[in-house]
Amino acid sequence: MSSYKEKAIGVFDSGMGGLTCVKELQKLLPGEDIIYFGDTARVPYGTRSRERILEYARQDVSFIESHSVKMVIAACGTVSSAVGSDPSFGGDVPFLGVVSPAGRAAANATRNGLIGVIGTAATIRSGAYEHIIHEISPEVSVISDCCPLFVPMVEEGMTDPSDIVVRSVVERYLSKIKSAGVDTLILGCTHYPHLEKAISDFMGDNVTLISSGAAAAAEAKDLLREKGLLRTDGHTGRLDCYTSDSAELFRENVQVFMGGDFCGTVERVSVEQLCSS
Amino acid sequence: MSSYKEKAIGVFDSGMGGLTCVKELQKLLPGEDIIYFGDTARVPYGTRSRERILEYARQDVSFIESHSVKMVIAACGTVSSAVGSDPSFGGDVPFLGVVSPAGRAAANATRNGLIGVIGTAATIRSGAYEHIIHEISPEVSVISDCCPLFVPMVEEGMTDPSDIVVRSVVERYLSKIKSAGVDTLILGCTHYPHLEKAISDFMGDNVTLISSGAAAAAEAKDLLREKGLLRTDGHTGRLDCYTSDSAELFRENVQVFMGGDFCGTVERVSVEQLCSS
Repeated sequence: MSSYKEKAIGVFDSGMGGLTCVKELQKLLPGEDIIYFGDTARVPYGTRSRERILEYARQDVSFIESHSVKMVIAACGTVSSAVGSDPSFGGDVPFLGVVSPAGRAAANATRNGLIGVIGTAATIRSGAYEHIIHEISPEVSVISDCCPLFVPMVEEGMTDPSDIVVRSVVERYLSKIKSAGVDTLILGCTHYPHLEKAISDFMGDNVTLISSGAAAAAEAKDLLREKGLLRTDGHTGRLDCYTSDSAELFRENVQVFMGGDFCGTVERVSVEQLCSS
Repeated sequence: MSSYKEKAIGVFDSGMGGLTCVKELQKLLPGEDIIYFGDTARVPYGTRSRERILEYARQDVSFIESHSVKMVIAACGTVSSAVGSDPSFGGDVPFLGVVSPAGRAAANATRNGLIGVIGTAATIRSGAYEHIIHEISPEVSVISDCCPLFVPMVEEGMTDPSDIVVRSVVERYLSKIKSAGVDTLILGCTHYPHLEKAISDFMGDNVTLISSGAAAAAEAKDLLREKGLLRTDGHTGRLDCYTSDSAELFRENVQVFMGGDFCGTVERVSVEQLCSS
């Protein structure tokens, strides 16, 4: 069994956003190896149809599993919302999205029974967060909205809370949710934690922000512990990244997502390889 | 020869932006059939590497040419910039990008010899507009910048010049170019004409805006006339669209790009079909 424990945790996302989940995993589980796949040649998923998102996600999972992992995390709100609660999506290994962990965390956190959810257009259209929250707490009210400019803003490094563009876009998207009086807000896309300060400034200190990537990382740790799959041999975890666009472009952009902390390998995988996997 | 003249003009873009060029073509050449392909399953191209852009563009051209067209227009600043001035890119039929037509139009329009260029990150990185302008007028100065939020803003319908978000983003991206004192500005991405009013308000009446899609449409007309390929049989042109994501999503979004004017067919083509074409 020890060799099985030594397998990596597989994480994938439509692009770079899933690295917020990787950062949390590294904090919680510094001894685990992580294999990350960012589908940068086909990012973003959040504006595409559900059919296309599922097709891409299946290819991403097949690719990740070709690396012999002990668990797969879809660190992507859009994919997690499209898949819903289908535990078989990961094939033979445990599969975890970000929707259920974040939904559970929010249902636990709310005191007034009003939860806000923000995500990509596809995520909000799916109603997946509402679904999981109502399964846990049918009496909770959920108000949700999509924030299409947040992903490109983060990718451009436009996240400073004092920036007039950042402030006006945050206000535009969150006014309705703030007026509704939510006390908990799910950042339902793994890009959004980079806007956490700006969102928090607008929403106020009384609103608890739930990062979907961090919630998934915490739940992944619990799941691996339950299954006796946590690595305990004192190993220092490594991070191996794969990207479907150029490795150079990935390296250029990784700073935005992991700051100076990135210490891993990057390799390109072709889209043809994905399509045939 | 008459049957050859009756072939359609093929137009493609990474997504929906190329429809601004289609609208101009319909105005200038109402008797021509148009086949449009929008690669909505892989949009945007502007954040990807040159290698990936060329790979996608070759597949797009092959797909368009499988419909037996008399000309191919890359109605996409990113593709046109990556291809450069390679007339053989279209294979057996004339191939036209938007860079050369817009560069020529700007070189003709400037009076003070200062031209601004805005486009996607990949377009600006390529230096393609500078290259063509300097070929025509070596003494002209070109100042360029990328505007990554413009495409998602247009796709969200956020184009109202009085909108604080629109105004602050336009100001952010264009201040340097305005300060440089340009009298001509190339909208080097086919999405940008939807922000024309906001850009014009900021730049002032003395600055001539050149829409790359409109410039390409005008040059396409000249080229077809020169080659004796203009249709003259009194036919009313039709528009047949293909999209790599769902046809329904294309229909939903087409209003943003063509207003109430859209009257055409929409059919989905799979990415696998593109990869193998």
